[in-house]
Amino acid sequence: MVIIMKPKASEKNIKAVCDILDNYKLGTHIVRGEELVIIGVIGDKKKIEHIAFDRMEGVERVVHIAESYKLANRNFNPIPTVIDVEGVKIGGKEIVVMAGPCAVENQEMITKTALSVKNSGAKILRGGAYKPRTSPYSFQGLEVEGLKLMYNAKKAAGLIMVTEIINERSLENALDYTDILQIGARNMQNFTLLREVGKTNKPVLLKRGLSATIDEFLNAAEYIMAEGNERVILCERGIRTFETSTRNTLDLSAVPVLKSKTHLPVIVDPSHGTGKWNLVEPMAKAAIAAGADGLIIEVHPSPDTAMSDGDQSLNLESFDKLMQGLKRIAEAVDRTI
Amino acid sequence: MVIIMKPKASEKNIKAVCDILDNYKLGTHIVRGEELVIIGVIGDKKKIEHIAFDRMEGVERVVHIAESYKLANRNFNPIPTVIDVEGVKIGGKEIVVMAGPCAVENQEMITKTALSVKNSGAKILRGGAYKPRTSPYSFQGLEVEGLKLMYNAKKAAGLIMVTEIINERSLENALDYTDILQIGARNMQNFTLLREVGKTNKPVLLKRGLSATIDEFLNAAEYIMAEGNERVILCERGIRTFETSTRNTLDLSAVPVLKSKTHLPVIVDPSHGTGKWNLVEPMAKAAIAAGADGLIIEVHPSPDTAMSDGDQSLNLESFDKLMQGLKRIAEAVDRTI
Amino acid sequence: MVIIMKPKASEKNIKAVCDILDNYKLGTHIVRGEELVIIGVIGDKKKIEHIAFDRMEGVERVVHIAESYKLANRNFNPIPTVIDVEGVKIGGKEIVVMAGPCAVENQEMITKTALSVKNSGAKILRGGAYKPRTSPYSFQGLEVEGLKLMYNAKKAAGLIMVTEIINERSLENALDYTDILQIGARNMQNFTLLREVGKTNKPVLLKRGLSATIDEFLNAAEYIMAEGNERVILCERGIRTFETSTRNTLDLSAVPVLKSKTHLPVIVDPSHGTGKWNLVEPMAKAAIAAGADGLIIEVHPSPDTAMSDGDQSLNLESFDKLMQGLKRIAEAVDRTI
Amino acid sequence: MVIIMKPKASEKNIKAVCDILDNYKLGTHIVRGEELVIIGVIGDKKKIEHIAFDRMEGVERVVHIAESYKLANRNFNPIPTVIDVEGVKIGGKEIVVMAGPCAVENQEMITKTALSVKNSGAKILRGGAYKPRTSPYSFQGLEVEGLKLMYNAKKAAGLIMVTEIINERSLENALDYTDILQIGARNMQNFTLLREVGKTNKPVLLKRGLSATIDEFLNAAEYIMAEGNERVILCERGIRTFETSTRNTLDLSAVPVLKSKTHLPVIVDPSHGTGKWNLVEPMAKAAIAAGADGLIIEVHPSPDTAMSDGDQSLNLESFDKLMQGLKRIAEAVDRTI
Repeated sequence: MVIIMKPKASEKNIKAVCDILDNYKLGTHIVRGEELVIIGVIGDKKKIEHIAFDRMEGVERVVHIAESYKLANRNFNPIPTVIDVEGVKIGGKEIVVMAGPCAVENQEMITKTALSVKNSGAKILRGGAYKPRTSPYSFQGLEVEGLKLMYNAKKAAGLIMVTEIINERSLENALDYTDILQIGARNMQNFTLLREVGKTNKPVLLKRGLSATIDEFLNAAEYIMAEGNERVILCERGIRTFETSTRNTLDLSAVPVLKSKTHLPVIVDPSHGTGKWNLVEPMAKAAIAAGADGLIIEVHPSPDTAMSDGDQSLNLESFDKLMQGLKRIAEAVDRTI
Repeated sequence: MVIIMKPKASEKNIKAVCDILDNYKLGTHIVRGEELVIIGVIGDKKKIEHIAFDRMEGVERVVHIAESYKLANRNFNPIPTVIDVEGVKIGGKEIVVMAGPCAVENQEMITKTALSVKNSGAKILRGGAYKPRTSPYSFQGLEVEGLKLMYNAKKAAGLIMVTEIINERSLENALDYTDILQIGARNMQNFTLLREVGKTNKPVLLKRGLSATIDEFLNAAEYIMAEGNERVILCERGIRTFETSTRNTLDLSAVPVLKSKTHLPVIVDPSHGTGKWNLVEPMAKAAIAAGADGLIIEVHPSPDTAMSDGDQSLNLESFDKLMQGLKRIAEAVDRTI
Repeated sequence: MVIIMKPKASEKNIKAVCDILDNYKLGTHIVRGEELVIIGVIGDKKKIEHIAFDRMEGVERVVHIAESYKLANRNFNPIPTVIDVEGVKIGGKEIVVMAGPCAVENQEMITKTALSVKNSGAKILRGGAYKPRTSPYSFQGLEVEGLKLMYNAKKAAGLIMVTEIINERSLENALDYTDILQIGARNMQNFTLLREVGKTNKPVLLKRGLSATIDEFLNAAEYIMAEGNERVILCERGIRTFETSTRNTLDLSAVPVLKSKTHLPVIVDPSHGTGKWNLVEPMAKAAIAAGADGLIIEVHPSPDTAMSDGDQSLNLESFDKLMQGLKRIAEAVDRTI
Repeated sequence: MVIIMKPKASEKNIKAVCDILDNYKLGTHIVRGEELVIIGVIGDKKKIEHIAFDRMEGVERVVHIAESYKLANRNFNPIPTVIDVEGVKIGGKEIVVMAGPCAVENQEMITKTALSVKNSGAKILRGGAYKPRTSPYSFQGLEVEGLKLMYNAKKAAGLIMVTEIINERSLENALDYTDILQIGARNMQNFTLLREVGKTNKPVLLKRGLSATIDEFLNAAEYIMAEGNERVILCERGIRTFETSTRNTLDLSAVPVLKSKTHLPVIVDPSHGTGKWNLVEPMAKAAIAAGADGLIIEVHPSPDTAMSDGDQSLNLESFDKLMQGLKRIAEAVDRTI
């Protein structure tokens, strides 16, 4: 059970509610978002079934939710959320495509990519300045320098951008440059980082962990939302299975499952999801057909020489061709791109 | 390495080839299909690199194939195979939809279903007369009686039919009634059964095992083809993963992966693949977008009272509506339905 | 619910029970074992809650079992089953070790192996005459010839033997030679074959399927037992996961889980479970420590030249050394070997 | 390739090596540990095959290592590492047992637990002050207060302690209280946190991620070691698979696999690995038999009322009984406990 306080509820109002819960020996977990305070009730709710909390001063409403995620829950908010980022609407009728290289390498390549993907119809530039890599000896990204190069590129192309942050320092740095913060699969349950991005006013692209269930994925979104930042975009990017012919197994059924459980937008990453550039096109099409609100695709001007993940990157021409094909699929499900 | 003999190669021709292989102490595995004889070479091929087998009498050609599956290999036959079953072409431009109940229950329900799905655009009636069930105490199907009911229904509706066979006895019985033989996921590596259907002249719908790799799947097809029956239709139907929000995880990336490795048609089963009727529509659309040649979908006149798998069955109206949506997706990938 | 009839219940007694069930429109599934008849009740048991079946003539007792497996259920029979095969007791205080090659290759190697493993303390000779192989072109075993060679070897060494059967024909052939019938992992849900071995009077070693849950595994055993053959030995042999440093992931927790759910003996196959000979010793020890009743281990006189699975086979010396180490572990859990 | 500089190598020596690498356009990744500097070479090593780096001033040796983890690699250091923490030696002949509650709840319970487990033979007190929980509304631990309670308890009992840290703040706080820092499964690839603990002088207990391969696990250890902290203890705690009868699948084969690839100590967590208290004893025994250097076990004075993970906790009596059984297994593999 969750008791949602009105935006202007006073501390006295909150205390009044908590006092009752204390009397019944129920625990409370108070989430103070930017705009509203939510009082989660811990323990046996049966004891307080008879109490009309919704008539108390400062109480907005009481929500009974079986799942452990509340704010992300479709039962809590049945209207699909559309996230507006500088005019780009994610979760609406239009399929939003994010494109760009795995890692930002230099100004020329990122600007060239930005101009080209913009021309092909992408709305958002993706690129990595901070790269979480399996080995400590692998290239870890250009860091702040990479953010700047990406910023220049997005401005030159008239795009907005999304980039991954991996800790508090990269988060602080990225706030000046990026429009959307990305939490990668490995950090999906880095709860400290989730809380930190939850305190910012930037939309968050949250990637599903490699072995995260749908339920854990939505609880991770809840960590961000519980801090007051409700602009979370979910991203299916492949799960780990026994199959080795693809890098991961892209779980496209997660798209309609998520849509039935949450009001948040859902996008798909067919590049990491498959690990092979020649599978990106069919799986991008399939993602849209399955109901995805957007795609995030790796594009590199010369994949063969990419510093990271060249195998799964499209070149500029292939991406342009892909976008043509996607338009037709989008129309077939009454959407645009 | 595989040495393919001409259709009219004599026993003498075959022996001549084998004698050379014997001289070099290489093993041979002779596959005598209905039309052609294939001599598989076992052992170190380097020894015979200098021998021009393709100039020998009766030899059609020599194929060097790294994978253990040969006849199913796209390198062996780069032209996509179109399987013609009583005029229904599987693997061509048209997406072929197979629809019907999990289990045949009685004449009325199967005929009603057949007439309805035919009217909605399905080309093939599916239905189970022999049901492999986890528990020995569960309903195991109507067996021969079920085959007869299904046969009547397909005739009434002007459809062809596919039904699962689970052993030699059911295979013998089914031959008189069915147009396509189905090998279920649990029997994908029942090599004896694969060989048996390989000796028939009926097309075979082969379902992927729950934990079968793509490679194992194609080797299972090879077992059928090695007996002379090359009319194999592959079916992705979900794999087993940690995720529990769906019955299985439908691995749609298997569709383009299979298409790159084999010339055989590939269809998708979104009903078993998800286990939930409300996921069938988005995943059916996604399957077509990913390049599938067909779909096999569970449809039941009243899913709530179905004897098996009611949760994942569409009712007749939902199936009709689904087919309308699929047409638009098919067009968007230059196919028809 | 299961109604167990007395060993000498008449057809009339059985009919009386069934008639009542019919009256309440409940289905029945009658299992006629060698000694007793069990009537499984299908449908809503609430309707017959008030009926005292256990007072009816010929009824032994009524068992309410939540799980779909009944005869294999520990609730049905809480006393651990000890299976006596020619004096070798499986499931008792003694840990029984089965050892031998993956495939029988010739008389010399199998006899040499048999004599050696007997000397090291093995009680049962394992070996494959019928090999289910992923590719149709791989060596499939010596078949009847292999059975004969193995029979000679066991006789020479004074062992009993276990060998895999893969279909009805191999089953028929094996009955004359083997003491224990093995159903391999790929055939764990080959229900026809399970029923066939259930009709024999030979103990059955049933291997867990690569992606079979514990529940499915016990239901597979139930298929055999429902035919009257209750001498089933369960074998954990590794499941399929994302981890690639081992061939499979040996799920040793399956041992105590199985022990809590069934009265049947449980053994472990560390050879297939890991796929690497150097992991066999630690995992064999771990299996015993976890409570396994036995082990099945691949041993080959010269693993480097083995026709199948050489990587995971111990040589004769390593096996002898292993057995010494196992004795100490067995003692530490109050067992012998 | 890795070039290891002598402990007293000067900056000039290091520069001399790097200059050569620069000349050949090879990248360098310099790891400055507390005692030694390691120069990782990035790029095509063939170019410098002819250069005798090991004859250069300040160079200790050159190691060619195929795996991406170097310092953790058994090829780099073939002698098993024994980590001495306040006199408790982990990785030596003695099996070290860590025991205590999932979460620290109050002084009484943690002190009672500490005294009891000490008496039973445990050497290290485990307990959570910072709990990474799937839901933001679940109990997240007593934080600093919990650390203090645990500190008091360990002092009272004469134990040392291990506790999980989840971010920089908790790390800072924990340094004053704990003897060993724990990185939980969800943070195994939180590379920032790995680096941070790598900069401390506390031993680190690193748990395997739920879907981490052995290779990724060792690379995570490498992140810590690359910062100069080579006292890393690896902990297998179960991986995620399709099986649902256990919370996770404890991958005991990981123990010998890790032992073959790294010199670091390896311990096992049978509590999280199975999620069920009745499976802890058999799997703890199995872990020792498989070669583990220690165990970490959840113990709670009254598991039924535990605030977290009560299902998998042993009570004090069960733990005491367990330790008796473990002694015998340890002896059987020539170890003590």
